[in-house]
Amino acid sequence: MSNFGFVQLRVVNPYEVAFREARSAVGAEAMLATAAEFKTVADAVADCTLVVGTTAGGRRHLQQPLLGLTEGVRLIRQRLRFSRVGLLFGSERAGLSNADLSHCQWLMRIPTREEHGSMNLGQAVAICMYELERESKVPAATERIDQATASEIERIAAVLMDALRMSGYLSSRSPSMSPEKLRRLTRRLHFSASDAEVWLGMLRQINWKLRQGS
Amino acid sequence: MSNFGFVQLRVVNPYEVAFREARSAVGAEAMLATAAEFKTVADAVADCTLVVGTTAGGRRHLQQPLLGLTEGVRLIRQRLRFSRVGLLFGSERAGLSNADLSHCQWLMRIPTREEHGSMNLGQAVAICMYELERESKVPAATERIDQATASEIERIAAVLMDALRMSGYLSSRSPSMSPEKLRRLTRRLHFSASDAEVWLGMLRQINWKLRQGS
Repeated sequence: MSNFGFVQLRVVNPYEVAFREARSAVGAEAMLATAAEFKTVADAVADCTLVVGTTAGGRRHLQQPLLGLTEGVRLIRQRLRFSRVGLLFGSERAGLSNADLSHCQWLMRIPTREEHGSMNLGQAVAICMYELERESKVPAATERIDQATASEIERIAAVLMDALRMSGYLSSRSPSMSPEKLRRLTRRLHFSASDAEVWLGMLRQINWKLRQGS
Repeated sequence: MSNFGFVQLRVVNPYEVAFREARSAVGAEAMLATAAEFKTVADAVADCTLVVGTTAGGRRHLQQPLLGLTEGVRLIRQRLRFSRVGLLFGSERAGLSNADLSHCQWLMRIPTREEHGSMNLGQAVAICMYELERESKVPAATERIDQATASEIERIAAVLMDALRMSGYLSSRSPSMSPEKLRRLTRRLHFSASDAEVWLGMLRQINWKLRQGS
C-alpha cells in the first residue's frame, strides 16, 4: 500500500498476535503504526461514500455487480477526487464473508486464470494499489540515447573492413563481402554515439596488432 | 506468475532448503514442480532474445536504460509474440548484482513512491505479470526480425574479449574493460540471429590471424 502512496490502513478485528508483531517489527512502516482498528466492517467504512469489495469471484452466488479491475478502478478514481473510498479485502484464508460483502456497492475482481480460485492477499492488494496509481503520474523521463551519426558508423565499417582484409576473411571465408554489405551490417546494430567510440577504439587496437603480425 | 498464465519459472542457484520446501508444499503449483534450475544467469537466459532486469533504481549508477513498467511491458509484449523474453528478478534481500544486470538489454522499474527503496519480491513479480497480461489483446503486428539469443550474444562477447586480450587493448588502452562491461556493450547492439552469425565469423577469423602473428 505504502509503495503506491496509500497510507490509511484500517483493520477489522485483526488477529492480535500477528498484528502486534507486524507493528513492532524493525522497519515497520509508519502506515502500520498508524493503522486504525475497528470492531466491525460498518465502523471501518462509515465515512466512505463508496465501498468496494474484492473477490476471486465465481465460487458463490454474488449479490452485487462484479467489475473487472480496470473498469472498477476507473469508477473508484472518479469518486476519490471528492470523497473517501473503502476497498475491502478479506483474510488470506477465507476472503470476505457474505456479511462483509453486504457493505459493498459493488465488487471487483483481478482477472486471473480460471484455474486459480484465489490470489495471495499481499499480491492482490499490491496489484489493486498499482492499478489505482497506474495513470496518475507522468511517467519518469527515460534516458535519452544519442544515436551514432552516419559518419561514425561509416568509420566503424571502414576500420572493420581493414580488419577483415588483414585477417584474410575477405579472400577465404566471404569473398562476396563488399563495403556496402559491411556498412549495412554495421548500421543494423544501432550504435549509440558513445558506444560507437568504444567500438572504434577496440577495432583500431585490433588492427594495430594485425599490422604488427603481418 | 501462474495466476496470470506465466508458467516457465527458471531459478538460478536457489537457496536449496527454501526451494525444496516450496516445491513439496501441499498445493504447490505445477509451475513450481517444473521450474528449471540453472547454475548461472547466462545459462538461464541463453535462449532468450530479450533479457530485462528489474530494479528499484536510484540506489546505484545504472549502466543500462531504465524504463517504467508500462513502457517496458509494451516492448516486452512485442517481442513475446515471436520469441522468448527473460524477466530477471533478484533476491528479496539484495536484488540483482551488477554482474546479473550485465546480461540485460535494459532495466525496468515499477513506479513507486520515492520514500521506498524497494518492493516485496512476490508483489513486484505479481504486478509485472499483471501488467503483462493487462491488455492481452494482440497489438498490431510489427516487422518480424529473428533476434539473436542471449547465448549468441555471449559468444560474440567472448570472442571479442579474446581479440582485445591478444591485441593488447586490455592492458594498454582500457585496463578497466571487464567481461561484464563488454557483455553490456555487445548486448546494447541489436544483433539479428543471422547478423550475429556473420559477426561471429568475422571476429573468429580476426582472432585466428591475431594468433598467427603472436
